[in-house]
Amino acid sequence: PQQGYPAYPPPADPVAQHFQAVAGADGQISAEELRRCLSQSGMSAYPRPGDSFSLETCRVMIALLDTDHTGTMGLNEFRELWRALEGWKGTFQQFDRDSSGTIEAAELHDAIRAFGYNLSRPTVEAIVSRYSRYSNRQIMFDDFIALSVRLRAVSERFRARDREGQGYATIYYEDFISMTMSI
Amino acid sequence: PQQGYPAYPPPADPVAQHFQAVAGADGQISAEELRRCLSQSGMSAYPRPGDSFSLETCRVMIALLDTDHTGTMGLNEFRELWRALEGWKGTFQQFDRDSSGTIEAAELHDAIRAFGYNLSRPTVEAIVSRYSRYSNRQIMFDDFIALSVRLRAVSERFRARDREGQGYATIYYEDFISMTMSI
Repeated sequence: PQQGYPAYPPPADPVAQHFQAVAGADGQISAEELRRCLSQSGMSAYPRPGDSFSLETCRVMIALLDTDHTGTMGLNEFRELWRALEGWKGTFQQFDRDSSGTIEAAELHDAIRAFGYNLSRPTVEAIVSRYSRYSNRQIMFDDFIALSVRLRAVSERFRARDREGQGYATIYYEDFISMTMSI
Repeated sequence: PQQGYPAYPPPADPVAQHFQAVAGADGQISAEELRRCLSQSGMSAYPRPGDSFSLETCRVMIALLDTDHTGTMGLNEFRELWRALEGWKGTFQQFDRDSSGTIEAAELHDAIRAFGYNLSRPTVEAIVSRYSRYSNRQIMFDDFIALSVRLRAVSERFRARDREGQGYATIYYEDFISMTMSI
């Protein structure tokens, strides 16, 4: 290449390129392909370069936006997920002051508040018990992403039933199961 | 040992022995210890001998009965879990007619009905999308256990809010989050 000029123009749409690197001809990706995609793109590379999300966390990400229940994700949903991941990752890194790859229960409380959710300490403690991988009250990056995805999904679903914004909703059993068991 | 007699009397309480083989001095087990325990005891050995549950599935099992939010499980909770696992495993094996270690979406519908839950086909389809590991509409044993645990937990929690048994309940946002994000 001529000196001072890059060999190729910079990619116009890096997010689409990450997606297309793993998507098959059908333009959809599975949880396993999403995992590879987020690893290759560096999105899951925290705290160590090359880190991958667990398959479980990728399945929750697929389920977040899988309105047609195919178990796969298209490019538009991937763009939306990517934006959300950038926000969650930034928040996690901000609270993980020593870059250990984990945050404490108290920091999770602040991180959740930074997302705009106002949850009491007992509720956050219950979340910590569920998402703390080694019963040590610490939340790893992978688990933080899984809980952020699920918190967003269940909050959106609740809000759709609380149209008046009263803070409560009347929910039928079957609807409750479908809201909670599909994420 | 004398011929015709076993070297030791048969164990009086095999479930407690499985538990004590992994529990520390505090009499509590973590998700990782539960995983080892269920593997050593043969409970997770399906379809192949030696199979283990995923750590994620063990975390959900801990969360099912973790009313004090310690992230660990005592012997009494372990006994309760063991009984439930025997039932779920028996149901799974019954529907997995070719012993492949997976069941189809239609079989999941029947299995869930066998537990006594009456869910519509669209709701079961949404559950299949979430719990089908390879986007192939099939449910593996490990995922079946995770979804059975969660279905039981969220159903119990819902029923506690629907005291009159009307099939619906008025739920506040914070309560909704605590019901769904702690399992």
